[in-house]
Amino acid sequence: MPLSENLSFKILGVIQIVNIICYALFTTYKEEEVGAASEGSSETSNTISHYYPFFQDVHVMIFIGFGFLMTFMYRYSFSSVGYNFLLSALTIQQSILILGFFHALFDNKWEKIEMDITSLINADFAAGAVLISFGALLGKVSLCQLLLMVPLELVFYAVNESIGAKQFKAVDMGGSMFVHAFGAYFGLAVSYVISSKEKIGKAKSKFLSTKESDLFAMIGTLFLFVFWPSFNGALADGNSQHRVVINTVLSLTNSCLSAFVVSKLLRGKFDMVDIQNATLAGGVAVGSSADMVIGPYAALIVGAIAGVASVCGYVHLTPMLERRFGLHDTCGVHNLHGIPGVIGGIVGAISAAAASGTVYGEDITKVFEAMEDRTALEQGGFQFAALAVTLGIAIVGGLFTGKICTFFEDSEEYADDEGQWEIPEESATKEETRKVEIDVGL
Amino acid sequence: MPLSENLSFKILGVIQIVNIICYALFTTYKEEEVGAASEGSSETSNTISHYYPFFQDVHVMIFIGFGFLMTFMYRYSFSSVGYNFLLSALTIQQSILILGFFHALFDNKWEKIEMDITSLINADFAAGAVLISFGALLGKVSLCQLLLMVPLELVFYAVNESIGAKQFKAVDMGGSMFVHAFGAYFGLAVSYVISSKEKIGKAKSKFLSTKESDLFAMIGTLFLFVFWPSFNGALADGNSQHRVVINTVLSLTNSCLSAFVVSKLLRGKFDMVDIQNATLAGGVAVGSSADMVIGPYAALIVGAIAGVASVCGYVHLTPMLERRFGLHDTCGVHNLHGIPGVIGGIVGAISAAAASGTVYGEDITKVFEAMEDRTALEQGGFQFAALAVTLGIAIVGGLFTGKICTFFEDSEEYADDEGQWEIPEESATKEETRKVEIDVGL
Amino acid sequence: MPLSENLSFKILGVIQIVNIICYALFTTYKEEEVGAASEGSSETSNTISHYYPFFQDVHVMIFIGFGFLMTFMYRYSFSSVGYNFLLSALTIQQSILILGFFHALFDNKWEKIEMDITSLINADFAAGAVLISFGALLGKVSLCQLLLMVPLELVFYAVNESIGAKQFKAVDMGGSMFVHAFGAYFGLAVSYVISSKEKIGKAKSKFLSTKESDLFAMIGTLFLFVFWPSFNGALADGNSQHRVVINTVLSLTNSCLSAFVVSKLLRGKFDMVDIQNATLAGGVAVGSSADMVIGPYAALIVGAIAGVASVCGYVHLTPMLERRFGLHDTCGVHNLHGIPGVIGGIVGAISAAAASGTVYGEDITKVFEAMEDRTALEQGGFQFAALAVTLGIAIVGGLFTGKICTFFEDSEEYADDEGQWEIPEESATKEETRKVEIDVGL
Repeated sequence: MPLSENLSFKILGVIQIVNIICYALFTTYKEEEVGAASEGSSETSNTISHYYPFFQDVHVMIFIGFGFLMTFMYRYSFSSVGYNFLLSALTIQQSILILGFFHALFDNKWEKIEMDITSLINADFAAGAVLISFGALLGKVSLCQLLLMVPLELVFYAVNESIGAKQFKAVDMGGSMFVHAFGAYFGLAVSYVISSKEKIGKAKSKFLSTKESDLFAMIGTLFLFVFWPSFNGALADGNSQHRVVINTVLSLTNSCLSAFVVSKLLRGKFDMVDIQNATLAGGVAVGSSADMVIGPYAALIVGAIAGVASVCGYVHLTPMLERRFGLHDTCGVHNLHGIPGVIGGIVGAISAAAASGTVYGEDITKVFEAMEDRTALEQGGFQFAALAVTLGIAIVGGLFTGKICTFFEDSEEYADDEGQWEIPEESATKEETRKVEIDVGL
Repeated sequence: MPLSENLSFKILGVIQIVNIICYALFTTYKEEEVGAASEGSSETSNTISHYYPFFQDVHVMIFIGFGFLMTFMYRYSFSSVGYNFLLSALTIQQSILILGFFHALFDNKWEKIEMDITSLINADFAAGAVLISFGALLGKVSLCQLLLMVPLELVFYAVNESIGAKQFKAVDMGGSMFVHAFGAYFGLAVSYVISSKEKIGKAKSKFLSTKESDLFAMIGTLFLFVFWPSFNGALADGNSQHRVVINTVLSLTNSCLSAFVVSKLLRGKFDMVDIQNATLAGGVAVGSSADMVIGPYAALIVGAIAGVASVCGYVHLTPMLERRFGLHDTCGVHNLHGIPGVIGGIVGAISAAAASGTVYGEDITKVFEAMEDRTALEQGGFQFAALAVTLGIAIVGGLFTGKICTFFEDSEEYADDEGQWEIPEESATKEETRKVEIDVGL
Repeated sequence: MPLSENLSFKILGVIQIVNIICYALFTTYKEEEVGAASEGSSETSNTISHYYPFFQDVHVMIFIGFGFLMTFMYRYSFSSVGYNFLLSALTIQQSILILGFFHALFDNKWEKIEMDITSLINADFAAGAVLISFGALLGKVSLCQLLLMVPLELVFYAVNESIGAKQFKAVDMGGSMFVHAFGAYFGLAVSYVISSKEKIGKAKSKFLSTKESDLFAMIGTLFLFVFWPSFNGALADGNSQHRVVINTVLSLTNSCLSAFVVSKLLRGKFDMVDIQNATLAGGVAVGSSADMVIGPYAALIVGAIAGVASVCGYVHLTPMLERRFGLHDTCGVHNLHGIPGVIGGIVGAISAAAASGTVYGEDITKVFEAMEDRTALEQGGFQFAALAVTLGIAIVGGLFTGKICTFFEDSEEYADDEGQWEIPEESATKEETRKVEIDVGL
């Protein structure tokens, strides 16, 4: 018999207490050099003035961007925005501990975790991966399963990121591989294990949007679009950061255009699902290579391709995967994060393999740390290896996590807030109203 | 006979003229040292580059955060977001003058008010206090009463802040006491005087939310959540600011978790009122101590306690206060700002009393200016005194202001936009529709 | 026979390809001096740390501010927010090329366009002008006409800006003239040519808002309000930027107050159209003079006047223009951008003419570059000339562009998403529901 939703929920309280103890034992504030600013009294913190605006933008993306993007399912909108909130907060807390542990393990340096603002940015990145996985599961997963998924996913996330970034020294500034592809394939693997075809069929209509819920989702889309350069560039600096911003903005504008063009061409009309999602594919796909000197035109090409691929995914691939393999992907994260993430990984590998000292100048070892004693081609190879490892760990980790989730009580009714949330009466009335009318009039 | 709504509204025009004259007589731009930046032509303004991103975040909290948080009452949503807008704009204008006057009075330095960006940040803080008070009164107060309340509240606010910060030299970086507790108890006192039990009863159903209006409110919640570190840290610098950000983020994540846990435990289901409000209690409660070296784990503890207390307040205390004492609190500001504000004041006092030179190093006089010639224990005492004075001035000031408000025309119908706003026809139709159906079908 | 919507849409794909080629040939990254920051490893990019927060704020204004402001038409809300998205992305891409071309032409310096973050800010400004024009046309223009309008408008925009800023050396920091007045009169001229009185009449009710769509629009209003100082000050520096922020915030607070006062006085009740738009008029009107030492009180006066003028425009002028001249202005851009833009231009000219070395000190040539060898009065004259030229080019350019648009298929049904967008079924049901009821009950 699976563990009950109510019991397991109380576990969240226990997690809080465990976290408090772990933070007391293993974390401390990082002391930093502060430079006295020229204007007498006020000192400037270098890390704050450098990173804070980027952190805030990424924070908006996690809580508002992802949160509202998922509200498109009217009947599940409380759960979407609410669980997004809960999972993000939980992930920020836990990922600092888990990432800290694995970094210590890989570096073999056992010290207290020194928290500064980059810890928070990295925690937000981890939250991004978790939320992407959540997107594949939206409406089909119980809260206790989600609460279980978070620490498990974070362990796999941390291992993969440590191998890719620390061992292979692969560059993935915007997280095309470590965040987007990882989160998408992990979530899809979990979904493959836990989704019930029958329940999806029964709740078919509840997975749909209303005009209002589509507009709420656009809030999410547009904040993600606007702040994406901050996501890709938060941890870059100097000229690199400058290139990240330009490349990301250009790539996004072009995935936006592609999404409109292809949505119209393939469907005859614009569909909100494409406009809400595929427009952002350029930000994902340019992630790995955003700090490289790929040229503004190349950013446009990457964006265009990602936008086209993403819409094609929504129109053709997602329905096919569901029909053929029973793989249900509520938000279509495969099209927004999976495919563009893989494209991003490949573009990054090619760009790295083609990098030359002539173009980068002294910058080259700033972008590719390992190229002090590696050729460009070797770097490209390691980039590819990181991508392959990411896909492997994500899929295996997701299948494993999904299996564990089946030991916990699953969601009884799919895509419905009613089981878990107090619903305002008036909205309920609206529902009844519609039914009454149909009895009376139609 | 009370002054009529229409007459008194024209007074707002007069206020505008008076303000223009006062600004002409008493304000000027602050000239600042600008450091020539390294890149030739462009000079960098120190105050702008240091404070501007924080100012903008706080500005978003005031206008969007508070504005949308209050839209949960569907039938009063135009008034909520509209009056929030109007009151904030008015407060920014007036508080610069009123705070300037009282600071001159307490410092006995009569010069023109030199405006810079910190003036605007302080004005936004004052707006925060006013909006918190507004939250207690939402739906039950006429606009002319609100317009009267603003200058009166600002006078009490300025007096309290001058006593606490200038006389007692109490530290309250995030405004737990001077903004949150003050705003909450002031608003509750006004509400105690002016709320009509009978009118509340008649409008009972209008105080409720719809599913859409709850989603609009979540926009407010999430922006408040994301930008809260900027509120607590806007005027901090160096290492202090660094700690504020970390402490505030951690505290908020934990009040978010607590809110979910306790909402479920106490109610059986999640309730949006808890998720919209209690999740933020950690930001309030860590306010006073956010810049102190309390340790990341302590921030987590503060957040957890505040979240628990806040949900308990919504579930048990607010209904009890209304039943027993006729104290109606529309947004439950007592639970989000009152109790957590008091908790924050107490935590600040204890942390100050426990502060030691060993932990802070040279930083100690940067955090506690007065500890050049005060012991930690004395500082703790002054922190407590500031909290007590805040509660006293807020309650007395609120009762006085409420009394004055009764001389002005009050709101005829509670929680209804119709009296003051042009309402789109379609929404009106929707209302009628529902009634028709009930006649026909149910 | 006009070109068909479907054919011309495919042209967007062609535009993408042309743009990629142009970017490959004509653009490159700007290399910038980076100063090694004091904290060892991390270098700070001067342009990024200086401009990035401002860029992001302006980016939010373009995509979220304008995008949601236009959603007030419930039945056209997908098109409003969707086309706003598409047009902005397209304008950013194209304006970099077109502005680059005209700047090269006027400076007679033919080099590759060096892209840095100020290129993106200027592109966002150009997007502002395009979106303002779109506001006049909302609901009455086909997408192929819009796609045609963008490059044409950008050419006129670039010519006007080059004449005003480069030839006349007029100062227009916040774009009162070059962005707001230009965009408004250009859009009105296009509207004059292409709007069909008959179709407007038929779609009358579709131009209206619902309560929800008005709340969505308020998201736009409030983000525009909050970030307007960034728009006006993005490219300013040092003390100038400091003054821009203070002047813009003050002016906006007062246009907000004026909008409330006058809306009530003229209509008896508040109308959302005034609150959503006229509140912002102060930001437009103070644009040209925001970096000048006009005095805080003068900023308040400008804001008050702009707010009053704007509401009067909505109440009296817009209906009159439609009745008398058949000039239909969907969003009332004449009242929010046209009139306040002209006021801004005039205030800028007067302020320039009154500028004296005593007040500005050494700053004077930083604000007015040309005043090295010009008197203040001459500068004022050139400011006026720039305003006149702006109006001339906008109106002639708009009439010309409107004429060209008539060769393309126009919008069959006005103010209706149904023709171009997949509409969620549930919303459709809601429509039917209402009809059914009317049959049954009323």
